[in-house]
Amino acid sequence: MKKLLNNPNHVVEEMLEGYVKAHPDYIKQSNQNKRALVTTRQTKENKVGILIGGGSGHEPGFLGYVGEGMADGVAVGNIFASPSPDPILEVTKAIDKGAGVAYLHGNYAGDVMNFGMAAEMADLEEDIEVKIALGSDDVASAPKEEKKKRRGIAGEFFIFKSAGAAADFGYDLDDVIRMAEKANENSRSMGVGLSPCALPQTGEPSFELGENEMEIGLGHHGEPGIEKGPLATADEVAERLVTDILTDMPLTNQDEVAVLVNGLGSTPRMELYIIFRRVEQILSEKGIHIYRSYVGDYITSLEMGGCSVTLMKLDDELKKGIDHPVNCPMFVQK
Amino acid sequence: MKKLLNNPNHVVEEMLEGYVKAHPDYIKQSNQNKRALVTTRQTKENKVGILIGGGSGHEPGFLGYVGEGMADGVAVGNIFASPSPDPILEVTKAIDKGAGVAYLHGNYAGDVMNFGMAAEMADLEEDIEVKIALGSDDVASAPKEEKKKRRGIAGEFFIFKSAGAAADFGYDLDDVIRMAEKANENSRSMGVGLSPCALPQTGEPSFELGENEMEIGLGHHGEPGIEKGPLATADEVAERLVTDILTDMPLTNQDEVAVLVNGLGSTPRMELYIIFRRVEQILSEKGIHIYRSYVGDYITSLEMGGCSVTLMKLDDELKKGIDHPVNCPMFVQK
Repeated sequence: MKKLLNNPNHVVEEMLEGYVKAHPDYIKQSNQNKRALVTTRQTKENKVGILIGGGSGHEPGFLGYVGEGMADGVAVGNIFASPSPDPILEVTKAIDKGAGVAYLHGNYAGDVMNFGMAAEMADLEEDIEVKIALGSDDVASAPKEEKKKRRGIAGEFFIFKSAGAAADFGYDLDDVIRMAEKANENSRSMGVGLSPCALPQTGEPSFELGENEMEIGLGHHGEPGIEKGPLATADEVAERLVTDILTDMPLTNQDEVAVLVNGLGSTPRMELYIIFRRVEQILSEKGIHIYRSYVGDYITSLEMGGCSVTLMKLDDELKKGIDHPVNCPMFVQK
Repeated sequence: MKKLLNNPNHVVEEMLEGYVKAHPDYIKQSNQNKRALVTTRQTKENKVGILIGGGSGHEPGFLGYVGEGMADGVAVGNIFASPSPDPILEVTKAIDKGAGVAYLHGNYAGDVMNFGMAAEMADLEEDIEVKIALGSDDVASAPKEEKKKRRGIAGEFFIFKSAGAAADFGYDLDDVIRMAEKANENSRSMGVGLSPCALPQTGEPSFELGENEMEIGLGHHGEPGIEKGPLATADEVAERLVTDILTDMPLTNQDEVAVLVNGLGSTPRMELYIIFRRVEQILSEKGIHIYRSYVGDYITSLEMGGCSVTLMKLDDELKKGIDHPVNCPMFVQK
């Protein structure tokens, strides 16, 4: 795969350099650690700090969601790799306003370890209270009874959105975490992979698929899914994804949801809207009301081909969170 | 190339169906013509109507820019093909508020013919005054002395943004067109293609390139550029694109510009920011001030690989236009 790069070992540093130069009115790098980026926007005193992070290569996740209404800071890892505790701790110190900091990240072993260590260091060395909420929305990654073992994928967007709003509403740390956990508990995602991405350093494809094959339930680092099968139509793919979600999280007539049809990187918007079209039809047939829709590239995997569907079941509090305005470099909602 | 499609002949209809279902609070299809989409937002009486359009496959261009602060309606063509006069006329009738309608589109033979015919029909049949401004920002497509012969590419985004703002400011039709033409006159783009897209109906790649080749000055339907060459580094690509722009439109110390680094479809945001990084360095070395930056997929070519750089030289009026808030399904600016 051809890439616009200089030294493959410096892609993250160079991306960050470009990013802060493009959006100096939104975000800056910490002087102590260039992998620690924090908002330049004024945040209210006593607001709980929202810290997100994870590997690079998922842009707009995660740095694109630092600004007003979502996260206050981000710790940036190498491509598809967790950030180390140092930048996490740096962000924590920078964004704590005395009300503590909520860490929001996907359920991956490396992230769990590094964010956990940073949380301990924040407590012991800096006396900052930290609580953690994990994203585990990927239906394909573990059985229903073991939701806590699941990976976080595009549903993390809803967690950031909900918890970011909660912090703006003036919730305390426990309530921000409760909101994040509710968003996660009410979200289910299912994805399909059509073509791999390539890591800049190796140039190797992240997985292999036949010319007319797709992979159902693929993880967003190329983790194997549930099954490989022949490339299906958009309607069949949408039906499969929604069916798997609704089998896992039954919704009934009158339920309200937020829908996210997320592109993995190289799938045109045209195709995402064709998928959305069928998702909407299925939900509409079941009397499930779509409260708000997001269609686009929200959490990607470099230039991977494919998409995921996420449904978040809403209550009044989550609706308020979803409606809350956001102003970040890669995502703005009025 | 694998695609998430149903019937390849229905991709545009199905995309539009999904699109209006996803964003009913922004946009609706005309009852008379499904390729005619207009804003559902209230617009001021006596505001000049802004009509954009062109082929499909460039999403977010063009339908993604209908909403508040940019366009009031869009006429949608087949993939990479101009819309016919009918939907253009339908949109014209729907968005005219008595102050006339500005047509904004790229300088392509099919668009020039069809928008021109629709403008005549609007005048003769509906007594609606229409004026047209073309986008011709692609430096690669004709020599400097023949700027009017050039293609419109990503710089069209700046034309829509500027003219949309002008209409909101209460400018009359002549002044809206003046603003659009100034935005075009002050904008230059240069692109580089790394990999082709495939048309859904044929599955054929839009152009051919060797495994380590890139094409400088590629058009966004796969039109041949200036030259093919070996794949260069991101810095070299940025330098070449900016040099060609500045040779064509010399800028001096103290000049101010808006910068757009536009992805063609499958190029990760990471790479676009690495390109931006070098663009910013070059401009900064020359004392050229970046007033505002846009980095992302603004006008794409399905899943084509590569990017373009656009610079728009600013004066006070264009700055006011660039600062004007926008609220559209695929682009929001506070």
